[in-house]
Amino acid sequence: MLQKNRLGRVQEKMWKLGFHQMLVTDPMAIYWLCGKMIVPGERFLGLLIRTQENTPGQKDVPESTQNDAPMTAPAVLIVNELFRFEEELGMPKVYYSDTDDVTAVIKPLLDPSKRLGVDKTMAARFLISLMEAGAAAGYVNGSLSVDETRAVKDNAEQEKLRIASRVNDAAMEQFKGLIHAGVTELEVADQMLAIYKSLGASGHSFDPIVAFGDHAADPHHMPDHTPLQEGDTVLFDVGCIVNDYCSDMTRTFYFRKEPDEETRTIYNLVRKANESAEEMLRPGIEIASVDRCARDIITEGGYGPYFTHRLGHFIGLQDHEYGDVSLANHSLEQAGIVHSIEPGIYKPGTAGVRIEDLVLITPDGHEVLNHSPHDLIVLG
Amino acid sequence: MLQKNRLGRVQEKMWKLGFHQMLVTDPMAIYWLCGKMIVPGERFLGLLIRTQENTPGQKDVPESTQNDAPMTAPAVLIVNELFRFEEELGMPKVYYSDTDDVTAVIKPLLDPSKRLGVDKTMAARFLISLMEAGAAAGYVNGSLSVDETRAVKDNAEQEKLRIASRVNDAAMEQFKGLIHAGVTELEVADQMLAIYKSLGASGHSFDPIVAFGDHAADPHHMPDHTPLQEGDTVLFDVGCIVNDYCSDMTRTFYFRKEPDEETRTIYNLVRKANESAEEMLRPGIEIASVDRCARDIITEGGYGPYFTHRLGHFIGLQDHEYGDVSLANHSLEQAGIVHSIEPGIYKPGTAGVRIEDLVLITPDGHEVLNHSPHDLIVLG
Repeated sequence: MLQKNRLGRVQEKMWKLGFHQMLVTDPMAIYWLCGKMIVPGERFLGLLIRTQENTPGQKDVPESTQNDAPMTAPAVLIVNELFRFEEELGMPKVYYSDTDDVTAVIKPLLDPSKRLGVDKTMAARFLISLMEAGAAAGYVNGSLSVDETRAVKDNAEQEKLRIASRVNDAAMEQFKGLIHAGVTELEVADQMLAIYKSLGASGHSFDPIVAFGDHAADPHHMPDHTPLQEGDTVLFDVGCIVNDYCSDMTRTFYFRKEPDEETRTIYNLVRKANESAEEMLRPGIEIASVDRCARDIITEGGYGPYFTHRLGHFIGLQDHEYGDVSLANHSLEQAGIVHSIEPGIYKPGTAGVRIEDLVLITPDGHEVLNHSPHDLIVLG
Repeated sequence: MLQKNRLGRVQEKMWKLGFHQMLVTDPMAIYWLCGKMIVPGERFLGLLIRTQENTPGQKDVPESTQNDAPMTAPAVLIVNELFRFEEELGMPKVYYSDTDDVTAVIKPLLDPSKRLGVDKTMAARFLISLMEAGAAAGYVNGSLSVDETRAVKDNAEQEKLRIASRVNDAAMEQFKGLIHAGVTELEVADQMLAIYKSLGASGHSFDPIVAFGDHAADPHHMPDHTPLQEGDTVLFDVGCIVNDYCSDMTRTFYFRKEPDEETRTIYNLVRKANESAEEMLRPGIEIASVDRCARDIITEGGYGPYFTHRLGHFIGLQDHEYGDVSLANHSLEQAGIVHSIEPGIYKPGTAGVRIEDLVLITPDGHEVLNHSPHDLIVLG
């Protein structure tokens, strides 16, 4: 069903960005806006959004849009008839077939005297074809209207993200039990899905990272046939999907032996970077300042060059959504944003440590969605 | 390494289509052209291809491109430094970083006085940004230059496709052995990957379709917890990847009981449609005529309305590549094309049958890449 509140927030951003018709083509953004997931493959799928430009200030989403004509409704779904469905979405649907010219189907729905916003992933074949047909007065990348709105989660989304991270915490407890001498990274990784499913998740939110020993010093290591040995680091970077929403957490453990002094120093530095960054989170602070806080701690500890990535990423229906926690993001934290905080130090031959939580920005501050402890733990 | 023969064929099509610079952004097309697979996520990845427009008729790919400057080389790879690699590809690489404006990196490589071809999946955010920067004199969907070239497989590709289908034939023999009373579709599907891997495949080329009973009448049925019962249809639509190339085959069996008369009629009609379409294949015939041959047989048999999809699709590095075997494809068969022939009849409540092979068009005719028999077989 069309999420009128979300649609209204997108229309508000369209006003601010200065365009009044927009084609959203990202299937996940369409799902977020109208609750219907369609994976159209190479075929066109679009949600056309209109503001009521001639009556600025007027509420953009009328009470009932159900019976509005496709020519005037604030939202219209354009979809191939192969994906025809009966469900009422509270907005008109326009179907086309494989023998139709989809551009000729879209064009009459657009106002050729106005600019058209398109989302950042719209395929060139559709965009160029609309341009060649003179469907609009100009074309702008209008993704921010959707992306910045999706970044701020409503209450229902926050609760789903909370639950997904709770399942991830419970799974992490069980993952520790998969560890024994000689087990390989892949053998551990291959058992994770069943554990997630037993806890109510529908699947992984990304391919799990299981890294033993020096592999932990590669932030994107893929699990392989390396067997676990006494003294190894054991890094799990894992997440699952529950009710469509993603979790994502990293913990770094040690197998059967306290790590050496430098590794302990590195661990404590990463932990301090994680916890200090989390502590400062509240609406209104610059997102770059959060990355800077964590980075400064690691740099002052002498490991700056070994923290080689941004501090975090936004998350929701997808594991990586629009929004960086990096020095380049000068926008402000807002209540409802959910992102990771995942400082790491990767010094090959010495140690690799990452500690990652998801955090929700609340009106008063923040809520850390993960509760697995940050302590240095020796397993086995 | 840059595949100069493939590049030359793409450049030839660019000449015919009337543009002389092109950005290829599809990672699989880039892999096909230069042997390097990079999955850039949201970051830009592009292979810039230039023809030597000022000297028409001259060979487009010089003997050595290794040391050509990025400003003049016939092919240049533009890639984020996160994906930096040492391997020499026989062409210049241009790296950019996350703090660079990628449009400003691409623009000087283009001739602003000429049109730019882009591929059909290029993301709007890159295309609109190039347009706003005035990077070229116009923008065209130039995908056909790559897609039509990829459709015609060279000898090395033909051999890989042959091997992938041989593995698929061997796997189909073993899949028959997974069948017993009470086993569910999902239980059978879940065992297929291990069998493929034991035969040398790296994975599925698509999620396998296992359909029991009336599920066979749904051409896109996903395996579920339905248990197998005596008298059921058993339909397998399966494929694997070997050395990067895909296979795809469908066979329809019966469990422990000869099917009834109407089902046998339907089976024999589908078999005849498959074999008649395959028999006619040779370079120079219209592709639509192949679909028509199969469709006419099924229609004359009285089941036309139950054959609800195109006869086939092209295949190669991807299970579904550009190119339909349908009434709408008026282009001609050429030696080197590989596609499926997969007629089906789907009459819910009565029977669902599909028989699919891959076929290679040869200079003299064709080669059917699958050798699993077409006979009506009762299992168990």
